Amino acid sequence: MTTSSKTFDQLHEDFTALFYPKSIAIIGASKNKLGGSKFLIALQSSGYIEGGGNVYLINPKFDELFGFPVYPDLMDSRIPKPIDLAIIAVSAKFVPTVVKQCNEICRFAVIYTSGFGESGNKNLDTELKNAIASSNTRFIGPNGLGVLNPYSKLAIYPNWCQSKGNISWVAQSGGTMARLYLTLGPMNIGFHNVVSIGNAYDISITDLLTYFQHDSITKTIALYLESIPDGREFMQIAQSITPLKPIILWKGGQSNRGVQATLSHTGGLAGSYNVWKAMCKQSGIMLADHFEFFQDLVKVAALRPNVPQNLNVAILVAGGGIGVEFTDMFEKMGLVIPDFEPQTIEGLRQIFPAVNTSFNNPIDLGEYGYDPRLFAQAFKLVLADRNIGSVVFVREPERFNIISKMLDIDDAGQMTIDSLTKIIQTTDKPVFCNPSPNRNTVDAYETRYNFQLQMIKAKIPVIEIPTNIPKIILQLYNYGKFLESRK
Amino acid sequence: MTTSSKTFDQLHEDFTALFYPKSIAIIGASKNKLGGSKFLIALQSSGYIEGGGNVYLINPKFDELFGFPVYPDLMDSRIPKPIDLAIIAVSAKFVPTVVKQCNEICRFAVIYTSGFGESGNKNLDTELKNAIASSNTRFIGPNGLGVLNPYSKLAIYPNWCQSKGNISWVAQSGGTMARLYLTLGPMNIGFHNVVSIGNAYDISITDLLTYFQHDSITKTIALYLESIPDGREFMQIAQSITPLKPIILWKGGQSNRGVQATLSHTGGLAGSYNVWKAMCKQSGIMLADHFEFFQDLVKVAALRPNVPQNLNVAILVAGGGIGVEFTDMFEKMGLVIPDFEPQTIEGLRQIFPAVNTSFNNPIDLGEYGYDPRLFAQAFKLVLADRNIGSVVFVREPERFNIISKMLDIDDAGQMTIDSLTKIIQTTDKPVFCNPSPNRNTVDAYETRYNFQLQMIKAKIPVIEIPTNIPKIILQLYNYGKFLESRK
Repeated sequence: MTTSSKTFDQLHEDFTALFYPKSIAIIGASKNKLGGSKFLIALQSSGYIEGGGNVYLINPKFDELFGFPVYPDLMDSRIPKPIDLAIIAVSAKFVPTVVKQCNEICRFAVIYTSGFGESGNKNLDTELKNAIASSNTRFIGPNGLGVLNPYSKLAIYPNWCQSKGNISWVAQSGGTMARLYLTLGPMNIGFHNVVSIGNAYDISITDLLTYFQHDSITKTIALYLESIPDGREFMQIAQSITPLKPIILWKGGQSNRGVQATLSHTGGLAGSYNVWKAMCKQSGIMLADHFEFFQDLVKVAALRPNVPQNLNVAILVAGGGIGVEFTDMFEKMGLVIPDFEPQTIEGLRQIFPAVNTSFNNPIDLGEYGYDPRLFAQAFKLVLADRNIGSVVFVREPERFNIISKMLDIDDAGQMTIDSLTKIIQTTDKPVFCNPSPNRNTVDAYETRYNFQLQMIKAKIPVIEIPTNIPKIILQLYNYGKFLESRK
Repeated sequence: MTTSSKTFDQLHEDFTALFYPKSIAIIGASKNKLGGSKFLIALQSSGYIEGGGNVYLINPKFDELFGFPVYPDLMDSRIPKPIDLAIIAVSAKFVPTVVKQCNEICRFAVIYTSGFGESGNKNLDTELKNAIASSNTRFIGPNGLGVLNPYSKLAIYPNWCQSKGNISWVAQSGGTMARLYLTLGPMNIGFHNVVSIGNAYDISITDLLTYFQHDSITKTIALYLESIPDGREFMQIAQSITPLKPIILWKGGQSNRGVQATLSHTGGLAGSYNVWKAMCKQSGIMLADHFEFFQDLVKVAALRPNVPQNLNVAILVAGGGIGVEFTDMFEKMGLVIPDFEPQTIEGLRQIFPAVNTSFNNPIDLGEYGYDPRLFAQAFKLVLADRNIGSVVFVREPERFNIISKMLDIDDAGQMTIDSLTKIIQTTDKPVFCNPSPNRNTVDAYETRYNFQLQMIKAKIPVIEIPTNIPKIILQLYNYGKFLESRK
C-alpha cells in the first residue's frame, strides 16, 4: 500500500535509514530477555552498538536496564531527534498510542507486537490502521519480527549469523524468514536486506521491491507471501525487476485449507493459486511450492542463476543405481536425458576402461570416476556436448578419503574442487552437484557440509534433495524463456 | 529362477547356510585390499573370525596373505568340506571354471565379479549360465556385492555398522544396497539378511522372498529391483507375504530412458512401470519411486507400520508458516486436513492462551507449544479426535535448549520424548514427526540426529523431507485397504 503522502524519491531515500539506522529506540524494553530487550541483546552481540550505533531504551517503569539508561518516552529531550528506527514491543492495546507518538520523531518503526486483525481483534485493528495512516513515520508490521541487515549489523536475535551477500528477502512469516536466513547464511550464501513484514499495514511488498530494484547490493530477491493487497501493482514492479534480478517467490496458501490457514496466520486475502501462477509466469518470477525447494532455488539464483538453453540434461555418476534413479526422476518431471554426440562417447571411451562403466547418458564412470583428473576430463567433455543444456553430477564427499589412499594423492576432494572451480568458469551451462549421502552419521554429515562450503565458494550449487533438481532446471528454463521474450 | 533340481525344503534349509555360514572361501584373494581380500578384512573387522567363523583364502600364486594360509584351489585336502559359502572374486574370464569347481564343495557362492551380460560379453555370459546350471552349488550374482547379516557377522566391507533388526533387504544394485544399509543402520533401524543380488542368474528374488516368508526374524522386506524374470511367480509369493509382513519396493527403470539405463546396469528386462504398479497394487506391496522416499517408507514399516483408517490428517506445529506449508503440501497430494471435533478445539482452548495460536487444523500452538507438558496434552487431544486418521507434528530439536531455560526445567527435549513414548503406546494411529531444521550448522545437525535416535527408540518415525510424509500416508492407507480385503 503506497498510502503515504510521501513521494517515491523521499521513500527511496528513507529506506536507507530503515536498513542502515544510525539510531534505534526500543519501546517496551524490560527485564524479560525474550521481550523488547531481546533486540538490545541482539544489537550488542551483532556489533551494532560497538560500531557506533545508538540504542535508546524506552519504558516509564525503569531508569536503567542491562547497564543502559532507560527513558520514559520517545519525547524525552535527552534523545537526539529524529530517530531512524523504533522497535515497538509493547502490549497490543498500547500500540496505537505509541504509533501516534512516533510521528515526527521516528523515520521508521517496526511493530513487533501481534494480536490485531490476524487474531480477530477488529476494533483495535481499526484503531491501529488509523494511527498508522495519520503518521509520517513509515511502519513495518504489525506481527512481524523486524528488519535485519548483516552489512549494518542490524539484528533481531542474539548470535544469529551475519553472512553478507546479495539476497534481499521479505517474508510474511517470521518463522519462515528465520528458516531461510539460518539455512543459507551459515553456508556463506548471504543476505543484504531482510524483512519479516507481518501484516504489512504500511510498508508493502511493492514498496520494498521498488527499493530493492535500485539497490546495487541486491542481486537476488526472495519472497514468502501469503497475500498481497494489489496484484496488478505487484506484477508491474516485478516485471521491471526480473529482467535484471531474479525474483523467487514461495506463496503460502495454495490449497483451500491452506488459504484458510493463512487467515489466522497473517490475516490477508490469499487469492487463488492459479492466479498467482499466471502472475508469476507473466512477470518472470520463479515460483517454489514449499520450503525445501524454495531454499534450493534461492541458493541457485544467488550463486549462479544461469539458464539452460534446452531441457536436455546430462547425468554423470559413479554407481549405476543413482544413474537409473535420476533418469527416472528427471524424465518423469518432463526433462530429457538425450544421447550424447558421438565424440563425447568416444572421448569418454578413451579415458575410462569399459568394465563397470557406461558412456552414454546417464554416464556411469564406475570406481575410476572418483579420480579427480579423470573426472575433470569427463566433465569437460560432457559440458562441451551440444546436445546438453544442463549437467547434474554426483560426488559423495565421504568417498574422497579412501580414493586419496587408493590413488596415492594428497586430497582427492580438494583436487576435485580445484578442477571444478576452473572448469565452471569456462561454461554458461547450469551445473548441479548432488552429494548422495551414503552414510548417516554426524562425521559423514560434517564431511558433506565442508564439501558444500567449498563448492559454494566455487559457485556450484550442491542440491541435497534430488527431486528438487529437475524442478530447479524447469524454473530456470522458464526464466530463460522470459528473459528472451524481453530482449 | 527356480531352475535348480533341489526341492523347496532343501532350498529353505540351505539358505540358512548362506546367511549363517560356518565357513567361507575367498577365491581370488590377493595383496590388493580392494579386491577379494576386502572380504577377509571385512570379516576380521566384523568379528566373524574372532567368533569362530572359518575363512579360507584361495589363490595359486600365494602361500600366505595378511597372516592367513592361502590354498591353491578349493579342492585342497587341507580345507574341510563342504564349505558353506564361497566368494568368487577372480577375473570374469576365469569365473565359469571356478563356478564348476564349486560343485559338490560349496553350498553357496557369491559371484562378485562383473563383466558378463550387463557389459555385452555374450559368449562368456552363456558359458557362465551353463556352468551355473550344471552345478549343485547355489549362486548369488554375478555382478553383486554379496550377502550381509549383522546377526552372523557376515560382512562385505570393513567398518560398516552392524545394526541387528527386522528388515531383510534385497537390491539389484550394490550402491543402492549400501545406501539403505548405511542410512538406516547407524540410526539403529537394523537388518537381518541383506543381499546385493546383481544379475541374479541363479538365486532369484522369489527364492529369497520364499525364505524370508518363513524367517521369524524378518518382519519387513525391502526390495530394489530393476527387472524380474517371472512377474506372475513374484506376485504369487508377494501376495502370500504382505498380509503378514510389509514389502516395500523401489523399482529402478520407470521411464523410457531409465529402463534403457538399467540394461547396462544389471542387464535384465525391466518391463513397463504401469505393469509394476498394477502388480504392487494387487499384491499389497508398497511402492516407492526414488531413494529418499524409499528409505523413509522402509523406516516407517520397520518401526511402526500402522495403517490409517482414513486420509484425514491433523497437523500440529508451533509457528504458523509451517502449518500453512504442510496444509498446502498435503492437500495437493490428495490428503484431507479436516476440522476437529468441537471438544478437541475446546480442550486446546483450555490449555493454551489465544494469542499467536490457532486451534483448528492445522494447529499452531505458538511458543507455548514447546512446553513438553502442554504439548503432551494437545497431542493426546488430537489423537483422540475421531475425525483424524494420522497425526503429523513438528518438533525442532534446536529449540529445546532455550525452552528448557525459559521454562526452568531440566531438559525439555527428554521430557518431550518421555511423554511421547508413553502416549504412542495408547494409539493405533500413524504418527510422524518432522524436525523442520532451522539452523544449518554441524552442531544443529548433531542435535537433530540425537533427537531422532531417541524418537526411533520410542518407535516414532522422524521424516526429514516433508514432501515424503503425504506419500507415506497414502501408501500406508492403500496397504490398510489391501489388508482389509484379505481378512
